[in-house]
Amino acid sequence: MSKELVFGHKVPDTDAIVAAMALAYLKKQDGYDVEAVALGEPNAETKYVLDYFDTKAPRVISRAKPEVDKVMLVDHNEPQQSVSDIDQLTVTDVVDHHRINGFNTAAPLYYRAAPYGCCSTILTQMFSEEGIKIPKKLAGLMLSAIISDTLLLKSPTTTDFDRDALKALADIAGIDDYEDYGVKMLKAGTDVDSKTDQQLIDGDAKSFTMGGKSVRIDQINVVDLDDITKRADDVKKAMEAEAKDKGYDLFLVLVTNILDSNSELIVVGEPKSVVEKAFDNKFNADDIMNLPGVVSRKKQVVPPLTDALEK
Amino acid sequence: MSKELVFGHKVPDTDAIVAAMALAYLKKQDGYDVEAVALGEPNAETKYVLDYFDTKAPRVISRAKPEVDKVMLVDHNEPQQSVSDIDQLTVTDVVDHHRINGFNTAAPLYYRAAPYGCCSTILTQMFSEEGIKIPKKLAGLMLSAIISDTLLLKSPTTTDFDRDALKALADIAGIDDYEDYGVKMLKAGTDVDSKTDQQLIDGDAKSFTMGGKSVRIDQINVVDLDDITKRADDVKKAMEAEAKDKGYDLFLVLVTNILDSNSELIVVGEPKSVVEKAFDNKFNADDIMNLPGVVSRKKQVVPPLTDALEK
Repeated sequence: MSKELVFGHKVPDTDAIVAAMALAYLKKQDGYDVEAVALGEPNAETKYVLDYFDTKAPRVISRAKPEVDKVMLVDHNEPQQSVSDIDQLTVTDVVDHHRINGFNTAAPLYYRAAPYGCCSTILTQMFSEEGIKIPKKLAGLMLSAIISDTLLLKSPTTTDFDRDALKALADIAGIDDYEDYGVKMLKAGTDVDSKTDQQLIDGDAKSFTMGGKSVRIDQINVVDLDDITKRADDVKKAMEAEAKDKGYDLFLVLVTNILDSNSELIVVGEPKSVVEKAFDNKFNADDIMNLPGVVSRKKQVVPPLTDALEK
Repeated sequence: MSKELVFGHKVPDTDAIVAAMALAYLKKQDGYDVEAVALGEPNAETKYVLDYFDTKAPRVISRAKPEVDKVMLVDHNEPQQSVSDIDQLTVTDVVDHHRINGFNTAAPLYYRAAPYGCCSTILTQMFSEEGIKIPKKLAGLMLSAIISDTLLLKSPTTTDFDRDALKALADIAGIDDYEDYGVKMLKAGTDVDSKTDQQLIDGDAKSFTMGGKSVRIDQINVVDLDDITKRADDVKKAMEAEAKDKGYDLFLVLVTNILDSNSELIVVGEPKSVVEKAFDNKFNADDIMNLPGVVSRKKQVVPPLTDALEK
């Protein structure tokens, strides 16, 4: 069996890095020759997690074809979120918890998706189904991915499966107080003052095609919305330059307060009126929209925006 | 929870009918309100199977939206193979063993695919993972679906998972000699003399989009290739009329001898030269191509043809 690479999406978050490591471990037990890699350096939160569980970050690649013909994807499926030469590769496996969009194959494959809060929750189930034990460190990493994706089980994407997996993983990892660990971990990812405007708008950004429009959506986690609001003019300038450079029709930055589960949405590009319609809400004079209770890009931003743009 | 319909592809074969019944049974155990339906009447083989295991055929629907907002798909995902109003429905679950093509959703969903010979094999695994017993009659139906899709485990699509599932299901169903049962069942589906040309070219036909071309591929199982060759001129006339009427660029009919695992391919439309390139083979003067060892549309026809048409 020829070697395969396993990776999550570009601009990786904790789940994208960890789910790749988990699937690679599982596939190795089944006899596959696989290596977990990443499409970018770990962010501040992921660095904290890897450091805490004494684990090396996966190697970063920008293209896969020079090394392999076949790949496995975790935590994404849309080609524009994947490795740059994805069109030259055969995808043999996908484990994901997002919508399916623009993902086409020539042959049958393994595809495992569920509408859970975290890809690592699906992987926890897969280990259990195959009767394979999750190593202690990996359990700590997977628990961190669930805390990250569900904002400590508070995001509306959270399911009972995520809650059950988190508890099972905490037991294996020997984390007695996962709430205490989780708040520290999430805060480690919210050090926005040390970041440039460019770093902020790149940090957790994903590209989508919706109703023929190229849409970029970034999310910035903070413990105080004002940390971003106070520099919104500069952030918008960076967004405008990036949208022009990369040809995005719309660029949305969702600033989320992880402590009280509220967000502000900063938007550049057009059609803004459709964004207002999507959220049944209005922008203020600075093109910022308050979105109380919105914390999930996947569940509370992408579906209404897709619906509105495809109408 | 609102009611959902579960169905396989248009022009249903045994797996399309049976996998819908199996997923509906499984989901009911999980508390879902679901009904297995079909997008067409059972074919001769499926009628034999349903009769053998004393089971009523599912209700036939042509549209789903008048009844439900949400549906579950088995044994297909491509929209042109699905219910006619699929674009107005939300797909919550897919269980399939085909390539993924043109399947897009606005929200995350359950998607379970594996490159096995039969969708009912994946369902057998799902019952096992959830610890739910397969009822005796349903096991007989699922065993029949595996025999049908893998031509008694002889198709190159057959995996060890299909072999294992078939044996487990034979035990539950109390079928001691599944080979004897399987040959009778397959022969029941090959009564081509009683069928009109139109019935033959509709019998197991599926539509695909490949490299921008609209491609229709039908498969006819026989115990003697000459049963079709002797009436090939009439079959081609029916194919030409159908291609013109429905706008197919290419119409392929794969005639498969299920006893010795060989096929003949009858083609109308263009580009025929690309079909020759796809199979590295030539048409005879009657636009018929001998394809020794070819029995699987999914594994031996769709991938090479997709590659050739998308180049």
